Amino acid sequence: MANERVVSIFEGLLEKTKELIEEKQITHEEYREFCLWFDQLGRSGEIPLFMDVFFETHVLRGMYGDLPGTEPSLLGPYYIEGEPELQEPLTLPQRPDEKGEVLFFTGHVKSIDGSSLGNTDICMWQADADGEYSHFADGIPEYNLRGRFKTDDQGRFTIKTVIPAPYQIPTGGPTGIFLKHIDSHPNRPAHLHLIIDAEGHDKLITQVFFEGDPWLETDVADGVRDSLITKLEKQDDHTVGTIEFALRPLKVAAKK
Amino acid sequence: MANERVVSIFEGLLEKTKELIEEKQITHEEYREFCLWFDQLGRSGEIPLFMDVFFETHVLRGMYGDLPGTEPSLLGPYYIEGEPELQEPLTLPQRPDEKGEVLFFTGHVKSIDGSSLGNTDICMWQADADGEYSHFADGIPEYNLRGRFKTDDQGRFTIKTVIPAPYQIPTGGPTGIFLKHIDSHPNRPAHLHLIIDAEGHDKLITQVFFEGDPWLETDVADGVRDSLITKLEKQDDHTVGTIEFALRPLKVAAKK
Repeated sequence: MANERVVSIFEGLLEKTKELIEEKQITHEEYREFCLWFDQLGRSGEIPLFMDVFFETHVLRGMYGDLPGTEPSLLGPYYIEGEPELQEPLTLPQRPDEKGEVLFFTGHVKSIDGSSLGNTDICMWQADADGEYSHFADGIPEYNLRGRFKTDDQGRFTIKTVIPAPYQIPTGGPTGIFLKHIDSHPNRPAHLHLIIDAEGHDKLITQVFFEGDPWLETDVADGVRDSLITKLEKQDDHTVGTIEFALRPLKVAAKK
Repeated sequence: MANERVVSIFEGLLEKTKELIEEKQITHEEYREFCLWFDQLGRSGEIPLFMDVFFETHVLRGMYGDLPGTEPSLLGPYYIEGEPELQEPLTLPQRPDEKGEVLFFTGHVKSIDGSSLGNTDICMWQADADGEYSHFADGIPEYNLRGRFKTDDQGRFTIKTVIPAPYQIPTGGPTGIFLKHIDSHPNRPAHLHLIIDAEGHDKLITQVFFEGDPWLETDVADGVRDSLITKLEKQDDHTVGTIEFALRPLKVAAKK
């Protein structure tokens, strides 16, 4: 980041801090108490977790709240680069005995004017049926339930995977102490992660949720958007979910 | 801190964050870059350093800027409890061969209406003539240049010590990276730390600086206040510095 940009943002941060102290009448004792907890959060390595769960959704709303198109959601702390490139017919890499209900997830990528965006790059990752991510839980193969692929020339894709489970964020450290203070449960609704990168369009980082999930309304990370919920339909031996994505042309994505 | 207080302050913090993003047009890329640096700061254990150097002075100005009396300054990261209680004639604990120019530091503690505050508790600590603090640098005895004492019944005291040296805050970690971004040197002017606790008055945490110090104007921690600068006067084999402190009665110190 350029130096003048750091100085400008830091000056803004100080100004906002002063306003907050004035408006909330924060005492020196409260400030010192906050600093102690803050140091514990930092040393525990939970800053990325805390920022992703409690800040990123608000940052995204601030950046994209007024713009047209499918809403972004959290990138989150579980993204890993280097996922394998998949070929048709698409199946997200999984163990031979992968637990969980088989899901055929279908998407259609369009521009906000309704035109299809063919040959779009998509990157997808998700938790398994136990709510665990490969690379973050022991005993799961590398890049399990992670992959990248292209849509067909009409912007459509169907990929075979399993329905992920909802999961809890870690509660044993300073983030857990904060959760108790704000009287929140630690659950996130089940979701698929997607990065959709179409030529001439703003890259979309988002998540897809499932209708009926018990944590949709109270997601600890507040990442759910109405336009990102798909209805799962049970068929013979599998389940189907479908969603459309509307991407903004780059000229509209002024802030990115 | 009570839970409803944490929720209220956190909601305020989110609101200010959204305003900052909007006003400075912060991009998602800049936000992610900030999160990476922020995690490094936390893991390095430099959050207390960073907060003390770059935030505390602004927090104090926000809390006390409009109130009468001697201005507070940073507590800083070098305060340690359990300092020895000193008796008259007062001498701050020091090595037999303590380096540096001998300083007789004289103070007079009053209420803001000008009345003397006798038998006031004072806690004092400082860096040595190399700019190092006991308990934070190797090879310095426990509680060296740290002590607590009472003023006389007229609120006066004189304590023998040495003139501390200016020092640099650590620059090898993420705080040093930030310093480079804001194009700042890492120096603090020489200073004495004091906590002055008089019955019926707001506890004063402050620092005393010396006229002519090269870093007074550009203190990296911005802790200098005009009312906290004393002029050192050279006498035969020692130096003398004098300052008056005006404490606020508790009823005026509404925010504390």
